[in-house]
Amino acid sequence: MTPQYQALVQALKRLPGLGYRSAEKVALHLIVENPDAGDDLVDCLKDAAAKLGACDVCGNLSEGRICSICLSSERDQSQVCVVEAVTDLFAMERAGVFRGVYHVLHGKLAPVRGVGPDNLNLLTLSNRLADGIIKEVILALGNDMEGEATCYYIMQEILHELDLQVTRIGFGLPSGGALTYADEVTLRSSLESRKSMV
Amino acid sequence: MTPQYQALVQALKRLPGLGYRSAEKVALHLIVENPDAGDDLVDCLKDAAAKLGACDVCGNLSEGRICSICLSSERDQSQVCVVEAVTDLFAMERAGVFRGVYHVLHGKLAPVRGVGPDNLNLLTLSNRLADGIIKEVILALGNDMEGEATCYYIMQEILHELDLQVTRIGFGLPSGGALTYADEVTLRSSLESRKSMV
Repeated sequence: MTPQYQALVQALKRLPGLGYRSAEKVALHLIVENPDAGDDLVDCLKDAAAKLGACDVCGNLSEGRICSICLSSERDQSQVCVVEAVTDLFAMERAGVFRGVYHVLHGKLAPVRGVGPDNLNLLTLSNRLADGIIKEVILALGNDMEGEATCYYIMQEILHELDLQVTRIGFGLPSGGALTYADEVTLRSSLESRKSMV
Repeated sequence: MTPQYQALVQALKRLPGLGYRSAEKVALHLIVENPDAGDDLVDCLKDAAAKLGACDVCGNLSEGRICSICLSSERDQSQVCVVEAVTDLFAMERAGVFRGVYHVLHGKLAPVRGVGPDNLNLLTLSNRLADGIIKEVILALGNDMEGEATCYYIMQEILHELDLQVTRIGFGLPSGGALTYADEVTLRSSLESRKSMV
């Protein structure tokens, strides 16, 4: 087991979702069993690193410095939806339910894991708000403790004293969900957010 | 394989969630491997059948003719929450989020499976509404096609022209859920039901 092999396994192990055994499997696959796949991966990674990055405005995955959503004249630039991760943005886009723009935080406040406000994409949010184009900020973060803390921080430290509408996504029974399998907090939200039928 | 054995397997196979193989396993467990468990089950079933049944008022599982929730003076008898199944009622009670009373339909309208209005516990709902004690009906059914149809039917055929508040539980992101894993309809509801933070 050469140092190069060990280094590769360690590098793979640092990826989310890979343990030591899977890292070893992947390493052997790429180096011994299927070297072409290794070359391909190197090319793809280099290519992606060269061409892709975070959008300077919103933090979305982008080919240029500014992503296609931020540049689009068909999106409502006055309505910004704050999400935790690019995968959340992808989910919203797949669903096609939102015609505004986004702001991706790349995480949630988590003091216990050492994630503070400086680790999140918050500075650019303040900058975006300065020019007065944005009229509504929709906080689309979950209602777990870290999501709550992040919403509260954004309200208090970034949006205070700005003339903006600030909303938060609604919580309730998920579509197709049965009461039987819903947790206490979801049942409570679904009752509290009940709507008149007439 | 005697006819008695076959009959037992068939009877077990009719239970929800049991296929032929599991029915056979259970039958052999109760008759050959562990006859005491079979005797116990017979006793429990007889006892339960003798003492338990559906509440005459709401359809909840009940020891007497009227269940403890319907009889309780601590519950708000003016607010009735319509649910599909007793397990939904149990979920609400475990969560402790509702202080009114219930009405259990024992199903949802499903014409394709031959479930029509007459198969649901709807007649007693009409009767309950007649005396004017109930002021709000909360429809706590899912938003799948059958849930929608059932809500619509109740609105049109049972609650029409009654002086009542009719509400439906709110739909949105479930508690602790991430946008990434939410389906299109849930994301849409969570945006539509967004709430002002101030």
